[in-house]
Amino acid sequence: MSAVRDKVVDFVDVEAKLAARSLKWGVDPDRRPARETALGPGQAGVIPAWVAEHDLGPPPAVRDALRRLADLPDVGYTRRSKDVGPAFARWAEQRHGWCPDPGLIVPTSDVMQGIWACVAAFSGAGDGVILSPPMYPPFHELCVSTQRSELIWPLRRTRQGWVHDIDELASLLESHPHSRILLLCSPQNPTGRIYGLESLQRIVELADEHDLVIVSDEIHADLVFPGVRHHPLLSLPSAAGRTVSLCSPGKTFAVSGLRTAVAVFGSEEMLEGFRKVPAQLLGDVSRAGSEAAIVAWETGGEWLDSLLELLGGHRRRVGEIVSGFPDVGYHPPEATFLAWLDLSATALGADPAETLLRRARLRLFPGHEFGIGGEGHVRLNFGTSSALLEEILRRLSEALRG
Amino acid sequence: MSAVRDKVVDFVDVEAKLAARSLKWGVDPDRRPARETALGPGQAGVIPAWVAEHDLGPPPAVRDALRRLADLPDVGYTRRSKDVGPAFARWAEQRHGWCPDPGLIVPTSDVMQGIWACVAAFSGAGDGVILSPPMYPPFHELCVSTQRSELIWPLRRTRQGWVHDIDELASLLESHPHSRILLLCSPQNPTGRIYGLESLQRIVELADEHDLVIVSDEIHADLVFPGVRHHPLLSLPSAAGRTVSLCSPGKTFAVSGLRTAVAVFGSEEMLEGFRKVPAQLLGDVSRAGSEAAIVAWETGGEWLDSLLELLGGHRRRVGEIVSGFPDVGYHPPEATFLAWLDLSATALGADPAETLLRRARLRLFPGHEFGIGGEGHVRLNFGTSSALLEEILRRLSEALRG
Repeated sequence: MSAVRDKVVDFVDVEAKLAARSLKWGVDPDRRPARETALGPGQAGVIPAWVAEHDLGPPPAVRDALRRLADLPDVGYTRRSKDVGPAFARWAEQRHGWCPDPGLIVPTSDVMQGIWACVAAFSGAGDGVILSPPMYPPFHELCVSTQRSELIWPLRRTRQGWVHDIDELASLLESHPHSRILLLCSPQNPTGRIYGLESLQRIVELADEHDLVIVSDEIHADLVFPGVRHHPLLSLPSAAGRTVSLCSPGKTFAVSGLRTAVAVFGSEEMLEGFRKVPAQLLGDVSRAGSEAAIVAWETGGEWLDSLLELLGGHRRRVGEIVSGFPDVGYHPPEATFLAWLDLSATALGADPAETLLRRARLRLFPGHEFGIGGEGHVRLNFGTSSALLEEILRRLSEALRG
Repeated sequence: MSAVRDKVVDFVDVEAKLAARSLKWGVDPDRRPARETALGPGQAGVIPAWVAEHDLGPPPAVRDALRRLADLPDVGYTRRSKDVGPAFARWAEQRHGWCPDPGLIVPTSDVMQGIWACVAAFSGAGDGVILSPPMYPPFHELCVSTQRSELIWPLRRTRQGWVHDIDELASLLESHPHSRILLLCSPQNPTGRIYGLESLQRIVELADEHDLVIVSDEIHADLVFPGVRHHPLLSLPSAAGRTVSLCSPGKTFAVSGLRTAVAVFGSEEMLEGFRKVPAQLLGDVSRAGSEAAIVAWETGGEWLDSLLELLGGHRRRVGEIVSGFPDVGYHPPEATFLAWLDLSATALGADPAETLLRRARLRLFPGHEFGIGGEGHVRLNFGTSSALLEEILRRLSEALRG
C-alpha cells in the first residue's frame, strides 16, 4: 500500500457530491443546493456545512472493499458481522489503549439504534432518562418514542467553555429517584468537549449510588485534537458493570450510510440485559457495512492521522477568523469537526442559521434544534477541503461584517 | 443492456463460493465443506443444499450498482432508502398485478425484523401468535423472545400434498380468544405450497371475526412455477385493514446479506399501529441494500424469467429422480427452489440429513428443525447449477439405493 493511498486527499469534487444523493449535499429536494453555478467567491451555490459528516469521503481501502463485494459470487446470508466486534476491539486498543472484550460487542445499524435498544432493555415505561442539551437533535425524540420521562441535566457555559456541573447531576438524582438511564455524549456534540477523567469517575460513582445504566455515545471518539485525550468510559474499571458504549466508524471514515456501529458492554450481565430486546427485532448489519467497518478499523490508522492533521489546521483557521469578530462566542472544540458558534450578540437575528442561508448561502445547523443552550447558536461543520473551508469562512465573515 | 446480461448463468464457481464467506458455503467453521477436492463424482467435498438461497448469485445489474457505490464520493448519511418502497411497488404491479401504496411501505433489515416488529406493535405479552409448522426454524423463537403465547395450526399432509385445514383454524380461534396475530407464509417454506384464493378469503374472514392481525411472509413470492399463481394477501381488498405483508429481494436475487426487505401495510391505520415500535430501534437499511433492491426491482424482470426457467427444469429433474424411489414422499413445490422430502420410510434412519451428510456428503436441512410434521424429512435446495444439481441427485440416489 503506498503512502499516498493512506493519506486523506484535501479535495472535494462538488459536482460529484451534488450527484451522490447524500443527505448533507442534497438528498432532500427541499434542501438541494442551487446547482446553477460552482461554489467559488461570488457564485450562487449553497455550501452545506450542517450534517455532522466530513466531506473527505471514505479511505481508498473502504472503496476497495466495496469493489470486492461486487465481485463476490455471492452477497447472500453470511455471518461476516461476527468479525465486526473483534476488528473494533483491536482498533480500540491501538487508538485508545482500551481493550474491550470482543465477545461483549454487538453490531448495530447505527449508534441511534444502540441507544434506543438500551433504553428498551434497561428501563421501563415512565422511568427517567437523563439527557444533556445542547445535544444531537434526534435525542429529543428518545423519551417521546419510548414513553420514558425526560430529565434534563444541561451543559453550562462558563468562561472556559461548556461544562457539566456534576453537583447538578447529584441534585437531579436526589429529586428524581425513578432515574434509570444516563445518556452521555463524549466527545460531546455540538460543543466538541471531552469529559475529563475525574468527571467521568464522579459520574460513575453517582450512577453506582443511584443504580443507573450509563449509555455512552462515543461516536466522535477518534476525532480528538492534540493536547487532550478521550477516555472511553469503559476504560474505567468502575464503569464496567453499568455501562454500554456506542461506537462507530461512521464519523471517522464517512461511512454512515452503510449502517454499521457497535454496542460495547462492560460485563456479561450487561450484555445479558441487552438481550431482552430480541436480536431479530434489531436485524443484522449488511455485508457492505461489515466489510467497510472491518477494513476501516484494520487499516485506517494512518489515513485517520492525516485526516486529524487536516482538521487540526481547519480548526486553527476557524479560530483565526472567528477571533476577528469579538461578538461571536466560541470555544474551539477539543474533538469533532464541529464549531459551535454563539451568534446571539451579532446582527444576524434570532435565527442566525436562517439568515446565513439567505444572506451568505451557507447551510449551517440551527442551534435551537439542539435544545436548551442552543438558542442563537449555529453548528458549523469544518470537515471539508481547505478550499471549501476558506469559502465558507469568507462568506461567514462577509455576513458578520453586515 | 445486452440479452446475455439479462439471463442467469447456469454455472457455480465452487472455489469462489468456498472463499466468499457465505453461510451456505461455509462461513461457519463447523460447517465448512471439505476443501481438499472438487465436488465431482467420487470426490470428497460436501455439497451444501441446505440454506434457502440459490447459488446463481445476483444479476449483473446488482453488481454494477455495488461498483457505482464504491466510486461515489460519499457513502454517508442518505435518504436513499426512501426510494425502496416505490421501487417495490412498481415491481409488485409488474410481476404480481398488485398495486401497493408506496406511501405504506417501510424498508426493514429483513423479513424477520418485520415479523418481530409486527408482533411487538400489534400484540402484548401473553397474546396468542398462530404459527404453522412445518415452518422456517427461526420462527420457533418468535414467541419465546417476545413473551407471546405460541398457538399451533399445523399444515396437514394429504395425498394431494400439504394443506391448511381452515376449519381447524376456526376451532383454534374459538378455543383461544386471546389470539392476536396469525403468521402466514405464502408461498410456504419448506413445502413450497401456494395458498389458493379461496383459502385466503376464508382466512381473512376468520381474522375479521376474531380481530387478528395477519402477518404475511411472502419472501418467496417471485419464485412461482407455471400453472399456479401467487396471490399477494394484500391484493384482497378485504385484507387491507388487518394485514402486513413482508417481501424481499433476498431469495429472488440472492442479496440477503445486504439486508433490505419491505413491510407493506394495507392501510394508514396499520402503518400507524406499526409506528409504536420506534423507527430508531429498527435502524435504517444500508445504502448498499437500498441500491441493490432498487436496481433489482427496476431491472430484474428478464433475469428472473430466465432463473425461473432454469429452476423449472431443476424441479423436473428432482421429480424424475425421486419418482424412482417409491419410499420417498414428495409433492413437487408450486413455488420456491426447495424440495421437501419425506425420507422416513427409507433406510436412512431417524435423522436422514445426518446420514446423508456422512454417507453422501450432501448437506440438506434436517426436517425436524421445522417442527411438527418435519420428522424424517429433509429440505433439499435445488437452486444451483445444472451440473451441481446432477451431482446432488447422483449422491442422493446412491445413498437411497443404500
